[in-house]
Amino acid sequence: MQLGDIATLIKGELTGDPSRLIGSLGSLGDLDGDLTFVMDRSALKQRRHMDSRAVVTTVPIDGCDYILVGNARLAMSQLIPCFYNVDDTGLGGSGGAVSRYPSVEWGSGVSVGANVVIGEGVSVGDRTIIMAGVVIMGGVRIGSDCVLYPGVVLYPRTQLGNRVRIHANAVIGSDGFGYVGEGANRIKMPHVGRVVLEDDVELGACTCIDRSVLGETRIETGVKLDNLVHVAHHCRIGAHTVVASQTGMTGGVSIGEHVQIGGQVGLSNTVVGDRAVIAARAGVTSNVPSGAVVSGFPAWDHRLELKKEAWMRRTMTRSV
Amino acid sequence: MQLGDIATLIKGELTGDPSRLIGSLGSLGDLDGDLTFVMDRSALKQRRHMDSRAVVTTVPIDGCDYILVGNARLAMSQLIPCFYNVDDTGLGGSGGAVSRYPSVEWGSGVSVGANVVIGEGVSVGDRTIIMAGVVIMGGVRIGSDCVLYPGVVLYPRTQLGNRVRIHANAVIGSDGFGYVGEGANRIKMPHVGRVVLEDDVELGACTCIDRSVLGETRIETGVKLDNLVHVAHHCRIGAHTVVASQTGMTGGVSIGEHVQIGGQVGLSNTVVGDRAVIAARAGVTSNVPSGAVVSGFPAWDHRLELKKEAWMRRTMTRSV
Amino acid sequence: MQLGDIATLIKGELTGDPSRLIGSLGSLGDLDGDLTFVMDRSALKQRRHMDSRAVVTTVPIDGCDYILVGNARLAMSQLIPCFYNVDDTGLGGSGGAVSRYPSVEWGSGVSVGANVVIGEGVSVGDRTIIMAGVVIMGGVRIGSDCVLYPGVVLYPRTQLGNRVRIHANAVIGSDGFGYVGEGANRIKMPHVGRVVLEDDVELGACTCIDRSVLGETRIETGVKLDNLVHVAHHCRIGAHTVVASQTGMTGGVSIGEHVQIGGQVGLSNTVVGDRAVIAARAGVTSNVPSGAVVSGFPAWDHRLELKKEAWMRRTMTRSV
Repeated sequence: MQLGDIATLIKGELTGDPSRLIGSLGSLGDLDGDLTFVMDRSALKQRRHMDSRAVVTTVPIDGCDYILVGNARLAMSQLIPCFYNVDDTGLGGSGGAVSRYPSVEWGSGVSVGANVVIGEGVSVGDRTIIMAGVVIMGGVRIGSDCVLYPGVVLYPRTQLGNRVRIHANAVIGSDGFGYVGEGANRIKMPHVGRVVLEDDVELGACTCIDRSVLGETRIETGVKLDNLVHVAHHCRIGAHTVVASQTGMTGGVSIGEHVQIGGQVGLSNTVVGDRAVIAARAGVTSNVPSGAVVSGFPAWDHRLELKKEAWMRRTMTRSV
Repeated sequence: MQLGDIATLIKGELTGDPSRLIGSLGSLGDLDGDLTFVMDRSALKQRRHMDSRAVVTTVPIDGCDYILVGNARLAMSQLIPCFYNVDDTGLGGSGGAVSRYPSVEWGSGVSVGANVVIGEGVSVGDRTIIMAGVVIMGGVRIGSDCVLYPGVVLYPRTQLGNRVRIHANAVIGSDGFGYVGEGANRIKMPHVGRVVLEDDVELGACTCIDRSVLGETRIETGVKLDNLVHVAHHCRIGAHTVVASQTGMTGGVSIGEHVQIGGQVGLSNTVVGDRAVIAARAGVTSNVPSGAVVSGFPAWDHRLELKKEAWMRRTMTRSV
Repeated sequence: MQLGDIATLIKGELTGDPSRLIGSLGSLGDLDGDLTFVMDRSALKQRRHMDSRAVVTTVPIDGCDYILVGNARLAMSQLIPCFYNVDDTGLGGSGGAVSRYPSVEWGSGVSVGANVVIGEGVSVGDRTIIMAGVVIMGGVRIGSDCVLYPGVVLYPRTQLGNRVRIHANAVIGSDGFGYVGEGANRIKMPHVGRVVLEDDVELGACTCIDRSVLGETRIETGVKLDNLVHVAHHCRIGAHTVVASQTGMTGGVSIGEHVQIGGQVGLSNTVVGDRAVIAARAGVTSNVPSGAVVSGFPAWDHRLELKKEAWMRRTMTRSV
């Protein structure tokens, strides 16, 4: 698609070469994609992510081809369907009995349970066990020695490394919670990103990991998530981090390596450094430095939180 | 069933016409049903909901036919099985291969995945996509252009409008958490209400919405719920409201239109006005006025909560 | 297996009879198993659980045969695969259509829905209803008059009493969240315990109950759990206790009888006495006496919590 045609489609004002060819989209944080999006002025800090790409933006950007629009998220929602087959799950249409495409690549020694449904273009590595009732949508790639328990659902293009274990009824790759506009004008943002689970990841029962609009939600090597955990679109959880049950995080949270996170924690739009410890039920609203131990809501130094709670109970008892 | 027979069955004292015919039951908040229930004196405020109906009640009510009982919830649990086939899921009995009743009404262009199971008396609108492994119990009505992802379960009589999207492994219409009595005498309250999802509703993965004893749990037009949200029996969520992940509400919560609710919020038996904003992790225990912005637990004005937390941390640091 | 061979395998130092025969393993809290494990000095209080058994331990124990090791959890993870077929789900291997083993024992009047998958050595009591898409792994025992809603998954050796009801997509018996070591050296602890649900238990949709490494997670008679509840490995919930939605507990929590627990509560490694009441959203970090009413985080006397919050808001308003 030519940049000039794109500008016309999204009703934007083009500065640059209208004949430039755009083959793919990419979100700002990722480095692939010929065309990216700048939602507001704060994104200009990521300038080096724009240099070789065309940009749809709400603010002028010197030195690159850009299309100026009023609402870049709206433009994104309009452009994604031009580049992706948004609702194609690769599971095939009507019929009821379509269980295995000829296009599936099977490793050796794979075990497939009853009522498993597998979409188009899936590959499954050696000795992987897929239990009864698992549904694997199109383009999913699964490594060797993985175990998928009953009822697990993998959305399109999810990637699993080797030795990944996913417990029953977990959902990987559902759409992020993203819309454009408000109220009756709220438009669903299409989600065509993918979730990547690296080697030795284990996920608990009914845990949900969303895919992002573009780009990846990435769970790195050796991460363990307990039951009923919610990971939103475009999060990154660093290698060997462990997360206890019922913890949730908003879109775009970035967690370092070897982090320990307790149960029922909430994380909002933050960066957590390596080897940090986040106590159970903390509400994390700002960045956590490497090695820090935090608790409370908003989360801060764990020792201060303990002191605060003790002080409060002591002082209150005296004054009442 | 005659009112006199009902009084005998529930061992109540009838004031009124014993030959009056009762064809259906209705909870107090809903307007249908010939016979309704008044659990305690506080319900007398809803007097206009009783005028043309017979009432099972724990307090005398002038001007209408009523049956006086000691425990109206117990009477309700005894009467519901007389009017409803409580445990009929419409999925058929033993057999293993019963997947589609002849009684299902299909729209045009419907797509049905592998291993989908559909009960008796279901209707499905045009172009709706039902993915692999979905289970739809009896009497469910689904509009046009809906998308049901794999593993979704719809309990009996659930209603979906048009363009409703439900992500994988969500459960709609499970029984509310209601019992009569205590301990070894705890009796399960039968649940025969239904969940209604209006047009353009989208629900996240593993989100659960309960049906009520009688009447409806209603999610209005354009509402979006994120992953792992819990909506109890008889809640109402107003049009265009959005609710982030892992939020939960007790039975009977009423939320207005255009409300924004953050993640991990809890709401207990309250009324939330239109355009209110409830910050993440708030615990809402009393009514929220229209347009208010609240946080904390118990939730109050968000600016006061911010001040409280700042004051506490400052004062504590000084005194320790 | 002889005790001397076990000592060699786990590289421990044996004090006692090397020819002693070990036929089974048992965790410390349970009374069955010829060989048990003492992780640290604090376990010595449970001395009577060791007397007739051999012990793998990190501290010397007078008066019984023991093997001294540096890391008893690591030894446990190495020994379990010698005594149990760790990954055998009893669902059969490849093939796709294996739905019912001849070895299943069926009661009379059982109803089995479409696409139900049942493993080896399962027994099902009279009149039990198993709805579409349920997966029951090997060795599961189900009593009479139970109802399993669609998508429920029962892991190996789960036991259900009579009249147990489990709502859609709940998962019973998934592996506890247990690993040995840290980071790149983190080893998955095999889980071969089982979950026991006694008579008249009801579980909500998407509720998850983990099995323990050895021994049981036990939910006693008449317990009711709401939707999206998390019960970790080796918990015990006493008879007739009710737990509202989205509550979670860490491994080894012990809850008494007739306890009431609100929604979104967290319980960490504690003992809760009979007839206690735990208010919604409490965070319980220490033992709760019988009959106590607690709230807050860390949870304490509910009246004090109410006073604390009121005092704080009053004092803050005055000083700001």
